[in-house]
Amino acid sequence: MSVKNAFYAQSGGVTAVINASAAGVIETARLHPEQIGTVYAGHNGIIGALTEDLIDTSQEPDENIAALRHTPSGAFGSCRYKLKSLEANRAEYERLIEVFRAHNIGYFFYNGGGDSADTCLKISQLAETMGYPIQAIHVPKTVDNDLPITDCCPGFGSVAKYVATSIREAGFDVASMAATSTKVFILEVMGRHAGWITAACGLASEAEDQPPHILLFPEVKFDQQAFLARVQQCVETYGYCVIGVSEGIKNTEGKFLSETGLTDAFGHAQLGGVAPTIANLVKDKLGYKYHWAVADYLQRAARHIASKVDVEQAYALGQAAVRMALDGKNAVMPAIRRLQDSPYQWDIIEAPLKDVANVEKFMPPEFITEDGFHITDACRRYLSPLIQGEDYPPFRNGLPDYVRLNNVTVERKLATFKI
Amino acid sequence: MSVKNAFYAQSGGVTAVINASAAGVIETARLHPEQIGTVYAGHNGIIGALTEDLIDTSQEPDENIAALRHTPSGAFGSCRYKLKSLEANRAEYERLIEVFRAHNIGYFFYNGGGDSADTCLKISQLAETMGYPIQAIHVPKTVDNDLPITDCCPGFGSVAKYVATSIREAGFDVASMAATSTKVFILEVMGRHAGWITAACGLASEAEDQPPHILLFPEVKFDQQAFLARVQQCVETYGYCVIGVSEGIKNTEGKFLSETGLTDAFGHAQLGGVAPTIANLVKDKLGYKYHWAVADYLQRAARHIASKVDVEQAYALGQAAVRMALDGKNAVMPAIRRLQDSPYQWDIIEAPLKDVANVEKFMPPEFITEDGFHITDACRRYLSPLIQGEDYPPFRNGLPDYVRLNNVTVERKLATFKI
Repeated sequence: MSVKNAFYAQSGGVTAVINASAAGVIETARLHPEQIGTVYAGHNGIIGALTEDLIDTSQEPDENIAALRHTPSGAFGSCRYKLKSLEANRAEYERLIEVFRAHNIGYFFYNGGGDSADTCLKISQLAETMGYPIQAIHVPKTVDNDLPITDCCPGFGSVAKYVATSIREAGFDVASMAATSTKVFILEVMGRHAGWITAACGLASEAEDQPPHILLFPEVKFDQQAFLARVQQCVETYGYCVIGVSEGIKNTEGKFLSETGLTDAFGHAQLGGVAPTIANLVKDKLGYKYHWAVADYLQRAARHIASKVDVEQAYALGQAAVRMALDGKNAVMPAIRRLQDSPYQWDIIEAPLKDVANVEKFMPPEFITEDGFHITDACRRYLSPLIQGEDYPPFRNGLPDYVRLNNVTVERKLATFKI
Repeated sequence: MSVKNAFYAQSGGVTAVINASAAGVIETARLHPEQIGTVYAGHNGIIGALTEDLIDTSQEPDENIAALRHTPSGAFGSCRYKLKSLEANRAEYERLIEVFRAHNIGYFFYNGGGDSADTCLKISQLAETMGYPIQAIHVPKTVDNDLPITDCCPGFGSVAKYVATSIREAGFDVASMAATSTKVFILEVMGRHAGWITAACGLASEAEDQPPHILLFPEVKFDQQAFLARVQQCVETYGYCVIGVSEGIKNTEGKFLSETGLTDAFGHAQLGGVAPTIANLVKDKLGYKYHWAVADYLQRAARHIASKVDVEQAYALGQAAVRMALDGKNAVMPAIRRLQDSPYQWDIIEAPLKDVANVEKFMPPEFITEDGFHITDACRRYLSPLIQGEDYPPFRNGLPDYVRLNNVTVERKLATFKI
């Protein structure tokens, strides 16, 4: 078998563990020089391939690649860029082939979510559509946990652990202040379409009186009256109320709540942030003193409180992607299969990319309580294994010691290409 | 020496380590039954004393008291309540003495910030003003780090570690996304009057190109033009810009920026949050895509990423407070004295309460760079020791295992008292 080089790139919103997948890919490829030559990383995802902006990962010392395992974010740069269809933009595909050919690339690893799976699928078809033989393997990643087939998506478990930890801690805080100060606390979390991250907040509560008391899912239309009644009931029963809210909740007319609330002094539309909107509603209708937090990027970058299970899965999926490539596979994605809830047992199976691309996995209705404000035991059984174990990064000078790669660029061989 | 009981209470905004001070007080008192009988904790701070709402900490098993060391928030409830002067409300002082006498209380430990030091000072004078002999010792606590004399305040070091960790992680995230997405990220932190927490964000940056690139201190009037120019320069030079901003920054007219920005759909004044205001300004004037986060209570409750130095100091100050009481001291506060920057060495000295009460410590001007947008090396030398070391809590089911005390209430002996 002739030696071919590999292309690896990161796509979409980054996570606390996408670099662990990168480490899995690169370290495994390095073990097989008889089949895989150099792993070239795309600078800023697929854009790096289009613009021939390639990073030579063989120039990176082993310890730097190993350190990717504990470094959040996308070490090679990510991108939000979706390839159009072959019909709509044939020039892009021709350019990709030109770059792949110039650098003898026969393996394509794309690390991303649903959109990236679609890109990866298109690349996998280049042999039949454009006569360029390449094996394309998708490595799953998304904090939103919305990919099908796989038990979960790397990145999600760590966000879940972060939000559950954070809302538990804030809950303890509010409980101590409620007698004379803050009575309602609201934490806004990510997940515009699927409520997985909001659901994870619920793990912090192990009894009805424990915070968070209310979760607002994007899957459940926001019912202002029922919500306010529940807030009041919590404050009257427990002395305070802690709320986890998805950035993507919608009102009964189907409009994002974050878009209904705020205008600035210049009359511009809102600035994002459903938490302040909810807070104001509570203040306005019930008069309670409130505090709110918006975790935003903090939640998906929080490698310091990553889930050990998540880190292990992210790395293992990177490894498995390379093994599948070595086995001659194409148009597949390694996926997590759950064998047992507790203790959690899982292995890795092969998912056909055509069943993954552009399919979104939502929360099943049976994971949400009947009143729409919390998670069920079934949901806990699903979520709990994903946040198990700690995997602390090394610290230097009191702070996490994350690696910045040298990212040595490969000399260009081709004319420039405008995207 | 006759045995007297002790009163301990927590005051003001709680922290990740105020319970570590509580553990220091209670565990040390338990070692001296020949002088200190029962430690009664005030339920919700001084309010617990006024309303005779006392918790019998002797009913709490040793392991629960030990677990306070790793549990954030105020385990006995805190309060925002400042005693008036003796002249203004003599009835309150008479009531306190009534409660202290009924429960044979001869030691008063108050765990709080500047306002609480003032309360503690008033209690310490009860012997001379009201003829009731009591020793009052203040245990310092405040995330704002604004108490005088002491090198730092317990609670601050852990917030500092949290914000520096968080903004470093978010900085890595933004760096990977900037090519095609978010270019400016803003993290809002606490510290309405003093910029210590904002300054701590700066520790995440160890070179000029490393985030955060800009810090906005409450000590520096917000200069919109200079700020926007610096943001643009960062984006053009580094590709992105990360900003740490204090909730308390003011515009050139001295008005809080958070109060200038937003009105909601009903025309109500703003909802808090200077981060969205800054974000909107950046979008409006420079057109950059932005994200923002507001850490709020998450930062001061984040025991999972507490500073080991901070935890040790919090505990040691609780211990020292009891030792001072045993030594017959009154109207004092144990304070941290810095002996050496690196490696950090400190001991505990005695600060007279009259020099602590109602005195705020601000950032010295030489800790802020000339352009007003970052911290100096002198500031780094001061801050860095305070975030050293990790002190992870135990985890159960993937989440920090914080203790909820039984908080057994003492039977009331007196008539009720309305506050």
